[in-house]
Amino acid sequence: MAEFDLVIRGGRVATASETFDADIGVRGGRIAALGSGLGRGAREIDAAGRWVLPGGIDSHCHIAQLSSSGVMTADDFATGSTSAACGGTTTIIPFAAQHRGNSLRQVVQEYHARADGRSLVDYAFHLIVSDPTEQVLGQELPALIRDGYTSFKIYTTYDALKLSDRQVLDVMALARREGAMMMVHAENHDIIAWLSEKLVQAGRRQPSSHAIAHHPIAESEATNRVIALAELLDVPVLFVHVSAKEAIDQIRAAQARGLKIYGETCPQYLFLTADMMDAPGDEGAKCMCSPPPRDKANQEFVWQGLRGGVFEVFSSDHAPYRFEGPDGKKAGMAAGGFKKVPNGIPGLEIRLASLFSAGVLNDIISINQFVALTATNHAKMYGLYPRKGTIAVGADADICIWDGTTERTITQSELHDAMDYTPYEGMKVRGWPVVVLSRGEVVSQDGKPVGRLGRGEFLRCEKPDPARPRGRWPFNVEVQTILG
Amino acid sequence: MAEFDLVIRGGRVATASETFDADIGVRGGRIAALGSGLGRGAREIDAAGRWVLPGGIDSHCHIAQLSSSGVMTADDFATGSTSAACGGTTTIIPFAAQHRGNSLRQVVQEYHARADGRSLVDYAFHLIVSDPTEQVLGQELPALIRDGYTSFKIYTTYDALKLSDRQVLDVMALARREGAMMMVHAENHDIIAWLSEKLVQAGRRQPSSHAIAHHPIAESEATNRVIALAELLDVPVLFVHVSAKEAIDQIRAAQARGLKIYGETCPQYLFLTADMMDAPGDEGAKCMCSPPPRDKANQEFVWQGLRGGVFEVFSSDHAPYRFEGPDGKKAGMAAGGFKKVPNGIPGLEIRLASLFSAGVLNDIISINQFVALTATNHAKMYGLYPRKGTIAVGADADICIWDGTTERTITQSELHDAMDYTPYEGMKVRGWPVVVLSRGEVVSQDGKPVGRLGRGEFLRCEKPDPARPRGRWPFNVEVQTILG
Amino acid sequence: MAEFDLVIRGGRVATASETFDADIGVRGGRIAALGSGLGRGAREIDAAGRWVLPGGIDSHCHIAQLSSSGVMTADDFATGSTSAACGGTTTIIPFAAQHRGNSLRQVVQEYHARADGRSLVDYAFHLIVSDPTEQVLGQELPALIRDGYTSFKIYTTYDALKLSDRQVLDVMALARREGAMMMVHAENHDIIAWLSEKLVQAGRRQPSSHAIAHHPIAESEATNRVIALAELLDVPVLFVHVSAKEAIDQIRAAQARGLKIYGETCPQYLFLTADMMDAPGDEGAKCMCSPPPRDKANQEFVWQGLRGGVFEVFSSDHAPYRFEGPDGKKAGMAAGGFKKVPNGIPGLEIRLASLFSAGVLNDIISINQFVALTATNHAKMYGLYPRKGTIAVGADADICIWDGTTERTITQSELHDAMDYTPYEGMKVRGWPVVVLSRGEVVSQDGKPVGRLGRGEFLRCEKPDPARPRGRWPFNVEVQTILG
Amino acid sequence: MAEFDLVIRGGRVATASETFDADIGVRGGRIAALGSGLGRGAREIDAAGRWVLPGGIDSHCHIAQLSSSGVMTADDFATGSTSAACGGTTTIIPFAAQHRGNSLRQVVQEYHARADGRSLVDYAFHLIVSDPTEQVLGQELPALIRDGYTSFKIYTTYDALKLSDRQVLDVMALARREGAMMMVHAENHDIIAWLSEKLVQAGRRQPSSHAIAHHPIAESEATNRVIALAELLDVPVLFVHVSAKEAIDQIRAAQARGLKIYGETCPQYLFLTADMMDAPGDEGAKCMCSPPPRDKANQEFVWQGLRGGVFEVFSSDHAPYRFEGPDGKKAGMAAGGFKKVPNGIPGLEIRLASLFSAGVLNDIISINQFVALTATNHAKMYGLYPRKGTIAVGADADICIWDGTTERTITQSELHDAMDYTPYEGMKVRGWPVVVLSRGEVVSQDGKPVGRLGRGEFLRCEKPDPARPRGRWPFNVEVQTILG
Repeated sequence: MAEFDLVIRGGRVATASETFDADIGVRGGRIAALGSGLGRGAREIDAAGRWVLPGGIDSHCHIAQLSSSGVMTADDFATGSTSAACGGTTTIIPFAAQHRGNSLRQVVQEYHARADGRSLVDYAFHLIVSDPTEQVLGQELPALIRDGYTSFKIYTTYDALKLSDRQVLDVMALARREGAMMMVHAENHDIIAWLSEKLVQAGRRQPSSHAIAHHPIAESEATNRVIALAELLDVPVLFVHVSAKEAIDQIRAAQARGLKIYGETCPQYLFLTADMMDAPGDEGAKCMCSPPPRDKANQEFVWQGLRGGVFEVFSSDHAPYRFEGPDGKKAGMAAGGFKKVPNGIPGLEIRLASLFSAGVLNDIISINQFVALTATNHAKMYGLYPRKGTIAVGADADICIWDGTTERTITQSELHDAMDYTPYEGMKVRGWPVVVLSRGEVVSQDGKPVGRLGRGEFLRCEKPDPARPRGRWPFNVEVQTILG
Repeated sequence: MAEFDLVIRGGRVATASETFDADIGVRGGRIAALGSGLGRGAREIDAAGRWVLPGGIDSHCHIAQLSSSGVMTADDFATGSTSAACGGTTTIIPFAAQHRGNSLRQVVQEYHARADGRSLVDYAFHLIVSDPTEQVLGQELPALIRDGYTSFKIYTTYDALKLSDRQVLDVMALARREGAMMMVHAENHDIIAWLSEKLVQAGRRQPSSHAIAHHPIAESEATNRVIALAELLDVPVLFVHVSAKEAIDQIRAAQARGLKIYGETCPQYLFLTADMMDAPGDEGAKCMCSPPPRDKANQEFVWQGLRGGVFEVFSSDHAPYRFEGPDGKKAGMAAGGFKKVPNGIPGLEIRLASLFSAGVLNDIISINQFVALTATNHAKMYGLYPRKGTIAVGADADICIWDGTTERTITQSELHDAMDYTPYEGMKVRGWPVVVLSRGEVVSQDGKPVGRLGRGEFLRCEKPDPARPRGRWPFNVEVQTILG
Repeated sequence: MAEFDLVIRGGRVATASETFDADIGVRGGRIAALGSGLGRGAREIDAAGRWVLPGGIDSHCHIAQLSSSGVMTADDFATGSTSAACGGTTTIIPFAAQHRGNSLRQVVQEYHARADGRSLVDYAFHLIVSDPTEQVLGQELPALIRDGYTSFKIYTTYDALKLSDRQVLDVMALARREGAMMMVHAENHDIIAWLSEKLVQAGRRQPSSHAIAHHPIAESEATNRVIALAELLDVPVLFVHVSAKEAIDQIRAAQARGLKIYGETCPQYLFLTADMMDAPGDEGAKCMCSPPPRDKANQEFVWQGLRGGVFEVFSSDHAPYRFEGPDGKKAGMAAGGFKKVPNGIPGLEIRLASLFSAGVLNDIISINQFVALTATNHAKMYGLYPRKGTIAVGADADICIWDGTTERTITQSELHDAMDYTPYEGMKVRGWPVVVLSRGEVVSQDGKPVGRLGRGEFLRCEKPDPARPRGRWPFNVEVQTILG
Repeated sequence: MAEFDLVIRGGRVATASETFDADIGVRGGRIAALGSGLGRGAREIDAAGRWVLPGGIDSHCHIAQLSSSGVMTADDFATGSTSAACGGTTTIIPFAAQHRGNSLRQVVQEYHARADGRSLVDYAFHLIVSDPTEQVLGQELPALIRDGYTSFKIYTTYDALKLSDRQVLDVMALARREGAMMMVHAENHDIIAWLSEKLVQAGRRQPSSHAIAHHPIAESEATNRVIALAELLDVPVLFVHVSAKEAIDQIRAAQARGLKIYGETCPQYLFLTADMMDAPGDEGAKCMCSPPPRDKANQEFVWQGLRGGVFEVFSSDHAPYRFEGPDGKKAGMAAGGFKKVPNGIPGLEIRLASLFSAGVLNDIISINQFVALTATNHAKMYGLYPRKGTIAVGADADICIWDGTTERTITQSELHDAMDYTPYEGMKVRGWPVVVLSRGEVVSQDGKPVGRLGRGEFLRCEKPDPARPRGRWPFNVEVQTILG
């Protein structure tokens, strides 16, 4: 009789810190044993000569999300989770997005309704808090955190989303009290609005104006400001989609001072550049996201941040808005230029392979850094560890077996999201997760989906526990006594 | 029949990045399996409710070493390795120390002779290079690196040891070519000598003058200088026994720029202070080491460096010179004051418990950081990974089972080195590695030695592979072309 | 017949860069000649053995100003200008303060009405812009700048005064276009309001809560933010009343990058400390100003900023609100605690002597730095140079003759403002401007007023021309092209 | 009868801080009066519409100096001082250069013999200390400092000149005790030697190898090291000929911390680039100096340092070695390549006009900064103030009248040094000092020499008194007590 439901045999396993050759024995969807010469499995997969890595976690993706301007993302949980699985991502953490006036609790229920029974892979939810009323702060949010929604995102920009500094302090105090993790989209709203207005007045409505309006100073100013607030209250904050040297420097300096400040970056800041928005016609809109891609020099700084440890997580910020169609980017350009274009680009399926190919195979980051950046740190940051994000006894058997040699050219027709373009069209990568397992079940093979939609489960998140630093920031003690 | 030679059952295992509950199955001295409900072992150890961690690696200790002034350390391989084992350290990397005029190869043979058949735990050797002659650089050192002595230490101070900048460049170029790891004792020799002379002239011969002469500026100047040389050649360097804010800032800034600069610190910079050298009589000499302990503020900066990731390794710099006796510190004071006192203090046995107690139990560093700082990173830094430094399939079963609750007061009479004092006398710690295994064999129990001297094996080191950063430093390309 | 109206004979003259022995010949209120052995003056003053310095300019003082909460300063132009003259200040630049809804032009007329015929010394006006409407930005402000009101102050805090980032950009763009100088009171409003509310909720209404609420992070955050906006538009900005290390570091870093960022500090940040607000009863309110005095360590950083050149000007921020009386600080404390206390303290009369005594006589700053910080740089910064702020041919004969030896103990009864206390009561200074001339006329002697109220003239300001740096900030070129 | 020997009438005068319209009355070679409508002069010069500035001081030039390798500079005091006068420089401070084994006192006598009766303009001497023996430190140097040789230069590179760190500490302690000013040529000798050797081994003997060997890291390392030593002893140090971002950053950071660290830069770092050394044949040797010119980006950083105040003085480092001839650069190239080429380039005559044209007329620095950088700060730094370096009552009438409009193309045939080339051949400048006065006597007119060789006087220097910062560095107190 088989000792295990499944044995993955003979691969080279990597975790966020270790690399070793071992068989993996899976029972009941969990990793039951790691060993050399493990007993037989009911099913066996030969992984000889291959990397065996934890399934990816994408903690920044927008799925079935209604934007504040009323546009629904192209991807729902079916296409989104399928695209994730085909790219090696076995856990997604999209957002339950509050619009102003909404009850947070009701928002969560609506998003559950959109996800229920449709996902190929497991999922959790971050909240987006755009309206921190007394009701939200005093009741809904604390209750939701205790119910397993332990992270939330706030914005310093967008008319419909941005919080004032005072509101940021309110939600920070709550996050501190409840042990939740805050994600921040940090750009100075007024700078962007003011520059945009000047650009529009000057008749410069083309996509490239987006990059000018979203100036690196807008990003670094808001980053510094939120760091200042976080320092005051000694509360952890993760800055999402960091794009440029200025903001990286702010984050690095805060980390050097011992603050619990974390950073995320995304493929668009490694592989796209602002000048792609100069493409003829409206094609430039295909690279419009916020913050925008910067230049080659900034790509180097982002790589430096990855190899040196400034960034904790590498996510896609998958925000799938089509180019064509009534809600598409092209229609937005026609309607009024860059300010009317839905903001965001896809990346869910290419995230892992792009970083593996350009980062690991070029020896810019280690295989262990790759695992940390794409899986383990996400799990720790958002309370899914040790169930997710690692290959260890007791963890869910969410596993990618990588073919590290095959070359592949990214093309939209071979991706599985609901988009009509990819900004990475034509980009060559080497390596792909050819067998992807979720709780011991294959969910994609050779980049193609396998398995039943709806098998993915909702994950309640525990309190976040990022790897470092720990301990109390020893300053601002006077202020901290006020907070209790 | 037992499936394993040994099973450690029911403990909570931690690696440098992971924490999980698992049984550990050992076969042939190696970890054969990690799993829940593993099969029977010929021997079983119950680890329920306990931390199960990799055995410590102490990569900075002086054992059976003849100083350049002709003083032999108190510890030989018998007492040194016993003390190590009783404190949870299962691998030591002492030095084979070249004196000027010596053949490096011959030095290595002599140190092997001192170690052969005497050690309780496994050991490797760093080299100390004080005389980089053509013979040494052109033949001996490359050959030794290939034979498994892949790291060497150099000094910027001490008359008998210090290299000129030019010699540092020569050995750096060699380290770059051969893939060796350089350790640097960085203090500006001339500053120390000049200040010492002024102090002696002023009749200030007491131990406290040692702290004035070894000014933090001496440390940070040399650190900056060696970083500059390393940047020029794009070569990794590890700064040993970093003690003060100024040098930490230099290292952090170099890391922020992407250089492969690493740091080590030691218990004396967390738990001792310079003013202890003001103790009455000659007692202050008991805290004399180089660099000296600093003040409370600097202890905070060292902690910041540990929790924030500036330091890669935490070692003892165990340099056992007795207080009493003809070669002792007291005799040195009598003979001429602080300049005649053998430099160095013990710490091999208390290293792990002191950091566990003050760092992990106070939640200043995580259990995973503790493992990285005391074991895993040493193994990676010096080419012993994955055989040593981790709990993973295939690794040697060098394992500590920790009792995290018992309090213990450090006192020399309960330590196992050959010293007649400990500078930590009276310090309280919580937690101790109560069962310590080396390749599956118990080498200490409840802080007392078990097992046969001489069972420890010599370890050939592979090429170092520190965790991060990777990739080529993209600057100074012109210079690098000269190096070929 | 006399060659000059007045000759000041035999003194040692200092300018912002030079020190020389010379007679000064005055004709028609202006300096007509500097020389050795000048011809006779109708009047002669013997300055042998004395410093002869330019009269002080106090470019930050609140005179006859109605606060946004409806409290009038204790000093009107009679008492304010008299106090100035007695302390060696021969030019004051108070504010014409717009309240929201006011026409700026009308505000200026009202302030002129308050000043006309009442001042002992010359005066100009800064504007305070709290309501940058289209009318104000499009018409009034440009016209006023051209009429000689070339500097204006904005606030990032106070409900009735604060501008949004967007409004700051609007006024910056205008300042850039018109060549005006912006002064900024930089504190993050939301931090202060949020902390204040928490303090009040906790029942901590005593004066010391003021220092907690106005946290150094509030100051440095707003400073960084306004620097970011200024960098975006390449526009000069002067930060007034800088109090603490964090903000000083921000300003210094901006200057190091070549930005046109200037700083002002004041006596309260050199001579008062926050713990004075712990005084028994309501006495602590006597030191309440914004930002508040900090601690001894911060005083050192302020001195470092003065000696090293971070600060361009040293002003009083004289904001005279009495302790007693219906509008006084004591009544404010009774009415509701620290949030109800009028914010501000006096300092007009002691500014020069305090810095001369503690700075020049202790050799922390040079006599030339003293002249620059108290006179010349104010004149250049606000468009009064070369008429004011220097001893040079053609300049107004605004001159202080200093007795550098007499000791004096500051006490309110000997000051000439309309206050009922001074926070510097009992402070000892050495040196005082014993003869003070305005356009060649004595306006104070031995610290007592001389001359007719109303002799002081209104000064139209030219375009500012700070000493350095010059040239265009070579970055953000794309943004700058939008501005035209 | 004339009231003055000379009146310069109607010009616009600038000092380091002031700008004003005034006549200048000269009596006995000194400025007797500044005034409007001064009385008649025996001689009058019309300066209407012109800048009237202090004569330049060039505090870094090599005249009649025998290099350690036995090459005499092309210029002696006749040609050197003539070239200076024709370019607007009225005071030169060349070096009396000790070779090892020399008595310093005797060296000074020899240099006096070379200068006596030959100079057109006034001169002082710096010492070069290459052999700080007990005799030199204990007797000669202190005596010479008291005799008016109050500054000396040391080297950290060149075999025949470099001091060890210990020797640097010795001379620093002396400079501190005696109040002398230290100038430092800061480059890491070993880096340069090591790289040079590698380049020579690789057969890369062309001039461009000079720029590779003298790497910016060599400069910044030595700069940091000497700053560290200076911080330890709290002693002022001026870094000469700073060329690159790295060293500028070190100096700026030291200044920001309050240290008395000063910087000098030179025309070659503004107007030449390293790639000029790639010129065909041996022409590249015409730009060889140490440190070498860098690239365009570094030129920007040097400009930033000038406009922002990092640099205190702008000198020529005139080191006139001819291209042709037996001791020339071409012969050096023939003899062995870049390591055999005499190091140094001319610049004495173009220094003022080049900075005036590119800096003042482009509004990158103010006219007052120009005066400070080229005259006043030199005088203060080296103890010649207030006799030299300013236009003030009592100062020597060393004055330049500038024609700010005429364009001129630099060409060797119109220069007055003894060189056979200028590296600035063909460079266009606007503005030239068309009348140059030394103690009231014209020494050049329209760029051509006037007056008698030998009229120039030797100047005894007082104790240096740089403008800022002042006060004692409040750290390293323990060390400073040792020094007494």
